[in-house]
Amino acid sequence: MRLAELSERSGVSTATIKYYLRERLLPPGRRVSATQAEYDEGHLRRLRLVRALIQVGRIPVAKARDVLGAVDDDSLDPHLRLGAAVWALPHEPQPDAADTSYEPALRAADALLGEVGWGFSREEGETSPAYRMLVGAIATLHRLGYPCDVRHLLPYARVADQLAEADLQLVGEQESADGQIEAAIAVTVLYEPVLLSLRRLAQAEESNRRFGQGG
Amino acid sequence: MRLAELSERSGVSTATIKYYLRERLLPPGRRVSATQAEYDEGHLRRLRLVRALIQVGRIPVAKARDVLGAVDDDSLDPHLRLGAAVWALPHEPQPDAADTSYEPALRAADALLGEVGWGFSREEGETSPAYRMLVGAIATLHRLGYPCDVRHLLPYARVADQLAEADLQLVGEQESADGQIEAAIAVTVLYEPVLLSLRRLAQAEESNRRFGQGG
Repeated sequence: MRLAELSERSGVSTATIKYYLRERLLPPGRRVSATQAEYDEGHLRRLRLVRALIQVGRIPVAKARDVLGAVDDDSLDPHLRLGAAVWALPHEPQPDAADTSYEPALRAADALLGEVGWGFSREEGETSPAYRMLVGAIATLHRLGYPCDVRHLLPYARVADQLAEADLQLVGEQESADGQIEAAIAVTVLYEPVLLSLRRLAQAEESNRRFGQGG
Repeated sequence: MRLAELSERSGVSTATIKYYLRERLLPPGRRVSATQAEYDEGHLRRLRLVRALIQVGRIPVAKARDVLGAVDDDSLDPHLRLGAAVWALPHEPQPDAADTSYEPALRAADALLGEVGWGFSREEGETSPAYRMLVGAIATLHRLGYPCDVRHLLPYARVADQLAEADLQLVGEQESADGQIEAAIAVTVLYEPVLLSLRRLAQAEESNRRFGQGG
């Protein structure tokens, strides 16, 4: 397809597509004349992923290029490519080892992961941005005096387990390894606001049941 | 307690506390001399909430003042105060009614909420920022060609239900109505990064099980 059709089908303006091409977020089309190039379904899929990263994930262009670099590195096996791509996403908050809540947060994170039985060693953990994000989030709870022991954290880990099964099911439905990795990134980024908004709606429901006039 | 002790116990510098006092995020202490004021446990608790909103929720100072205004409005019943305070939090993404994915997203959101049985009318929904955030998130999935039908969204709504029960349990453990509302806001904001980091860790686990060398 031509640039105009790629724009039409993706809902992304031709000016933005040209910008992504210049920034190497999108591979060049197959040149068919001095002024025209031909794009395929792979371009369309990649364009969707770029939009998911930049618009929804609010990931800076340079960081998005890193994520896509990991997606495209076919020297890695699929699980590792998927991991590398998710690792390149932003993970906030990261912990501060000088914080007095850092050690208690590390212990709480390890106790939690031990309890849910995820095969995770402390050594792996220290290099994993998601593990470090967890420690950072628990350290904040601890510092502000909110409960952050295993009893309070476990329900969150259990639902994360359930969601991961649904997420990877969806990833597994994609036919190609490339499609799977793109879907994994998109699912990670795009379902986060779905999850957070549903949690707030469910909280309002539950609050109404417990504290409302009708409760 | 004096300012120095409030700073010591909260881990917030005296300069920052003075800034919060000037910005009316923290009520003034009880004046004991021309240069000194006395602070109580209520100040400490409020300071923790302000830190949760600004540091973790990344909420601008003016917006934080709105949230706290709702927390403090005791003309409302506890459920409504809680709702008003959570409504004042930022909710991204908000949908664009001109988007061709807006109508399909509305229909998907309504079908989903009908399915989980939350007592929610479309009219209430249109004014609820969490409902609008859900519609915005589904519209993005739809626009980018990712699955957003009830079958794919339902696992997220189910876990949101489970979490809300745990969240409100924790809120109910607070003794005063003020303490409950402060806990509700803090729990909403502070557990979001816990949930998102655990989901990414669980995805890595599940990916390893499905696609890894050992799988």
